[in-house]
Amino acid sequence: MPLSGIRVVDLTRIIAGPFCTMLLADLNAEVIKIETPGEGDPLRQQGEAVAGLSWYYAAYNRNKRSVTLDLRSQEGKDVLARLIEGADVLVENYRPGVLAAIGFPPERLEALNPRLVTCSVSGFGQEGPYAQRPSFDFIAQAMSGFMSINGREGEDPIRSGIPISDLVAGLYGALGVVAALQARERTGRGQQVGIALLDGMLSFLSFMAANFLASGRLPVRTGNDHPLVAPYGLYATADHPIAIAPSNEGILSRLLKALSLEHLRDDPRFATNAARMANRDALRAEVEAVTRLNDQASWIATLNAAGVPCGPVLNLEQVFDDPQVRASEMVLEVDHPGRSTVRMLGFPLKLSDTPCRISRPAPELGADTEDVLRSLDISPEDIAAMRAGRLI
Amino acid sequence: MPLSGIRVVDLTRIIAGPFCTMLLADLNAEVIKIETPGEGDPLRQQGEAVAGLSWYYAAYNRNKRSVTLDLRSQEGKDVLARLIEGADVLVENYRPGVLAAIGFPPERLEALNPRLVTCSVSGFGQEGPYAQRPSFDFIAQAMSGFMSINGREGEDPIRSGIPISDLVAGLYGALGVVAALQARERTGRGQQVGIALLDGMLSFLSFMAANFLASGRLPVRTGNDHPLVAPYGLYATADHPIAIAPSNEGILSRLLKALSLEHLRDDPRFATNAARMANRDALRAEVEAVTRLNDQASWIATLNAAGVPCGPVLNLEQVFDDPQVRASEMVLEVDHPGRSTVRMLGFPLKLSDTPCRISRPAPELGADTEDVLRSLDISPEDIAAMRAGRLI
Repeated sequence: MPLSGIRVVDLTRIIAGPFCTMLLADLNAEVIKIETPGEGDPLRQQGEAVAGLSWYYAAYNRNKRSVTLDLRSQEGKDVLARLIEGADVLVENYRPGVLAAIGFPPERLEALNPRLVTCSVSGFGQEGPYAQRPSFDFIAQAMSGFMSINGREGEDPIRSGIPISDLVAGLYGALGVVAALQARERTGRGQQVGIALLDGMLSFLSFMAANFLASGRLPVRTGNDHPLVAPYGLYATADHPIAIAPSNEGILSRLLKALSLEHLRDDPRFATNAARMANRDALRAEVEAVTRLNDQASWIATLNAAGVPCGPVLNLEQVFDDPQVRASEMVLEVDHPGRSTVRMLGFPLKLSDTPCRISRPAPELGADTEDVLRSLDISPEDIAAMRAGRLI
Repeated sequence: MPLSGIRVVDLTRIIAGPFCTMLLADLNAEVIKIETPGEGDPLRQQGEAVAGLSWYYAAYNRNKRSVTLDLRSQEGKDVLARLIEGADVLVENYRPGVLAAIGFPPERLEALNPRLVTCSVSGFGQEGPYAQRPSFDFIAQAMSGFMSINGREGEDPIRSGIPISDLVAGLYGALGVVAALQARERTGRGQQVGIALLDGMLSFLSFMAANFLASGRLPVRTGNDHPLVAPYGLYATADHPIAIAPSNEGILSRLLKALSLEHLRDDPRFATNAARMANRDALRAEVEAVTRLNDQASWIATLNAAGVPCGPVLNLEQVFDDPQVRASEMVLEVDHPGRSTVRMLGFPLKLSDTPCRISRPAPELGADTEDVLRSLDISPEDIAAMRAGRLI
């Protein structure tokens, strides 16, 4: 598998960092998650739990091992140093400077292991005026400009319903780590990889950024309408609405034909995209007058057959029951011995020869502490002493 | 640099695929973008143009080369076959089966080049009941469940203001390609990498998916409130609102202290997170009564100093003028000879030893056709004949 033999020391908690290391673990890296003795990742206490296990934690920590270690103690730091010596990757999401403050500045990391790839996930970046500010997904959504274009005109900007900046940063972090490992194949050296929640979100501003930078005109929030194309959006049917996305003139022609609205092509109000944008409400009324005549399911069949991108707005129950989602194995059932079978999201990356897979369920807190410490030749007596001192 | 020496043949258009190959090009892969003679990527005609150049196109195609090639012609297919023989990666976003239909089924790709990594970006995946449906970002947002949790309760679900499913799929595609290249270091073989817009979005459902799968309870849309934590959200000040995200009890205590609202801790309505969720409106009123007393800038200073994640909702003009965004070099100026200097988003991935960089601006249509064809030992006469036949 792609990352077989790659060992990752994982100092991250909550979601952005753990998502990054989950992606690496799904690609078969050996991920050693360092957790605080007695408590562990706060995610263990968050979200819906079944048989005492948070399914949120279980999902983001699949395929990882758990080692408890008190990094405030010298003994804990010594163990971390030895883990780093034998690792390929270190991932951390402390505030910038904290890793150095606990004894692991970049120079020491390089001295311990010049082949180490260090990935730092942060709110604002390792440098710059806001580097030391506390951060959180919602703040990155607000400060990146994302919220300013999410929502409806005339209403407040709104956050995304998911912690999008955490997830984008985690995904970039995984790309950065694997790219740095690829660079190491040639250079023999590791390096530092940085990704900030803010920068990740900024990089997703796409045509909104390009158009603003080119024109100086601020984009407006357009709800389910497309800012640049009409018609487009959610349309009422005889029962549930459908999303329709005719993204170019060819698809628009197919849509109008399927709706028996070809005559609208001759209407000067709708002759060009610019005209359609100016007469969006009138066009919506024309389209909806037809879509209301039949139900969602039949429109989805009709329009897909005509080559028009369309679909229902599904809630999560419908999503996980959808035949395509099932065919893509996007929900997995993972047996957690002593707990239950946990259902979780599957692997979006489909690799034909080395598919991602579940090699182990998310670990119980500290489940791998003894194994890992023994592999570092730490004696049973020293392990017992650390346990007595609550350092592991 | 991480992907130096890696050659990518890029058959993609619009955004999901080109974003994937842009990420590879930013990591210094040599990306050869194949475009239709005379037209090119439709993105060339979209978005705000300056001096005839779409800045949207310019942003997503930086660091790439452009070769025009009519893939409907036998000559075009022959050139593509030779490019594939010398490539490391092929990225395509045709509908499933189209690449095979034009003469490049997986068996032939493997016969041409067993070391080739093929990445397919699609709407619904390469298999399953919807594989042949036309797709588009909006449809993936609707069918993934994302829209069902984006927006406000009591209003319609809404799409994200950015083409989020395209971008997520492109980012996953880049991760998949680099992971497959890493696997190839050991196996000597390429493989197929698949990513669907739908699956990428599904994988971002995070705690929404975990909580639904664990409890069977559908999430509701909560606008700027957090579905699991209170207080949290946008609060009015004496001028502009601020986003505040106290994500745990410690930060909440710091927030209440900074607002001189510590007495709320003794109010049974606000004693626990569950109580605060039940009395969210009352708590909002208490917090806002204080935040209204001072302006946004002073609250941002005060709360950050107190260790409370907070920030303004910035529009794009403010974002690109922000000192942190400038410090992170998240806007680049790229000289496009014969056009203008183009401003575009920078590199969110910060690599200390092998930083991403601009090695060439986005290409004019077909700018590299002759160079690339000559590098395949195609004679000047044959190149001239292809040009006369409008095959390049």
